[in-house]
Amino acid sequence: MSQIYDRVAYIGLGLIASSMIHAGRRAGLQRVIAGTARSAGTRAIARQDGLCDIVTETAAEAVADADLVVLCVPVGAMGAVAAEIGPHLKPGATVTDVGSVKRAVIDAVGPHLPEGVNFIPAHPLAGTEHSGPRSGFAELFDNRYTLIVPAGEVDPVALAKLERFWIGMGANVETMEPDHHDLVLMVTSHAPHLIAYTMVGVADDLRRVTDSEVIRYSAAGFRDFTRIAASDPTMWRDVFLNNKDATMEILGRFIEELMRLQRAIRKGDGDLLFDYFTHTRAIRRGIIEAGQDTADADFGRGRNRDKGGA
Amino acid sequence: MSQIYDRVAYIGLGLIASSMIHAGRRAGLQRVIAGTARSAGTRAIARQDGLCDIVTETAAEAVADADLVVLCVPVGAMGAVAAEIGPHLKPGATVTDVGSVKRAVIDAVGPHLPEGVNFIPAHPLAGTEHSGPRSGFAELFDNRYTLIVPAGEVDPVALAKLERFWIGMGANVETMEPDHHDLVLMVTSHAPHLIAYTMVGVADDLRRVTDSEVIRYSAAGFRDFTRIAASDPTMWRDVFLNNKDATMEILGRFIEELMRLQRAIRKGDGDLLFDYFTHTRAIRRGIIEAGQDTADADFGRGRNRDKGGA
Repeated sequence: MSQIYDRVAYIGLGLIASSMIHAGRRAGLQRVIAGTARSAGTRAIARQDGLCDIVTETAAEAVADADLVVLCVPVGAMGAVAAEIGPHLKPGATVTDVGSVKRAVIDAVGPHLPEGVNFIPAHPLAGTEHSGPRSGFAELFDNRYTLIVPAGEVDPVALAKLERFWIGMGANVETMEPDHHDLVLMVTSHAPHLIAYTMVGVADDLRRVTDSEVIRYSAAGFRDFTRIAASDPTMWRDVFLNNKDATMEILGRFIEELMRLQRAIRKGDGDLLFDYFTHTRAIRRGIIEAGQDTADADFGRGRNRDKGGA
Repeated sequence: MSQIYDRVAYIGLGLIASSMIHAGRRAGLQRVIAGTARSAGTRAIARQDGLCDIVTETAAEAVADADLVVLCVPVGAMGAVAAEIGPHLKPGATVTDVGSVKRAVIDAVGPHLPEGVNFIPAHPLAGTEHSGPRSGFAELFDNRYTLIVPAGEVDPVALAKLERFWIGMGANVETMEPDHHDLVLMVTSHAPHLIAYTMVGVADDLRRVTDSEVIRYSAAGFRDFTRIAASDPTMWRDVFLNNKDATMEILGRFIEELMRLQRAIRKGDGDLLFDYFTHTRAIRRGIIEAGQDTADADFGRGRNRDKGGA
């Protein structure tokens, strides 16, 4: 890969931004990386680790002269950042973001950007349960999808450059319409997170089972929920508050379906349960065939890592 | 480790039995392994692979002369197997099982066993989403818990031998009372499985999001659910049908809690969501400290395996 942008500015230096910086350096996608974060502690770490070539105190300074500006702050903070940087953007620059919901970001950011700036929202479908400027790694996006979600008309040259940038960081790139994105992600990401949070909360709340029992015996399935439910609280709060309609729709369907299974269990309808569980197994096979997971029997155990250890 | 039993018989040769066989051989815990399975295909594979020293056509033949008999069939089949083997058990033998619920197994198996046979139920808290005689591996139980769940009085010598057997296979061993076991496991395993099955079912059922979209974009959280929801359908059907009371209790609590979060989202109560998500993150830390998972940022991605690949 060769250089795509001269100067890239990151606003917010958490898991996604720091992974993009490592992945962009790995492939030499830009000449200069500028960055800033709201927290002085994060800025200090970024300076100490050499995460960015330039760490500025404010977002307005960071975007000066940048060809690409990447908004990596929680969804609820995007509007304020856009208002701050709007007057300082270089003409012809591209502004993108990595937020998990797109309609709310488009509504919050779009009005603050001047004519002549290309706003092209995006969403990398990759993450871990860790956060902060030291949580990133260059491989995070490898073979994962990044969805580019243009809000209406967009300059095709700017779009093509942004796509090449993501491909250079290892991602598979697709484009999608904003409202459809928000529904698809509700199903594949937001609802699973909310449900995992709920289950972990229920376990914690149940007085007859101690926390230490829950923790010791978590390997039997619960552990995978806690991994999901350990994701960044601010990010997820903003996701749910900014994708309410889809959340309400899916939760309604989920509760309906859960009650159907509950009724089958109460009535002893083993055939319904067997058929249901057989069908969901087939969906798993589709995911493995699509290359989005391996068939390795680790069940979140990290079997390869554990071997010979433990 | 040295030999604990002369002859061990496995009834059912799926994931758990085949893993126990590999783990038992690794440590030399028995002299002879006998085994049988209901399916002729499974018996043929076991013979072909040399999984057992002796593969018999029937459970009655398999238990002849066995010092330890391990019932590795779905919970719903335990009673029938116990009725078949009861008259053929060696006096003084120990019968154990690996079922995921214990009260129902105790009620189904106990009445069929003759005087002088020690019945000591157990439950290894380990598994993968795979099943069958070729899915096992010796490391499955390493550093995982196996719960020994005696049903009333038990011979202390037989109990100590069974505990040493599980320790020899790599497990941490604890004892627990049957009804408490069923409640703890409902929280740490059964409810997470039912909820994962439900979420995968909802995703599949939603007409406006295609299956191929769900599969392609699963890396964002949904994938971990599909892994859980790919577990053996017969086993899980039997678990839910045989642990109804605890299932109903936890599902009720879960739906209540989910509706609380749903209400917070609808009302825009960001503080409640943030506090809730922060608290569940702390539970995750407890699990890592208890050695039941690593802090590696794989999020089910198998980061180490992926490196350089993809």
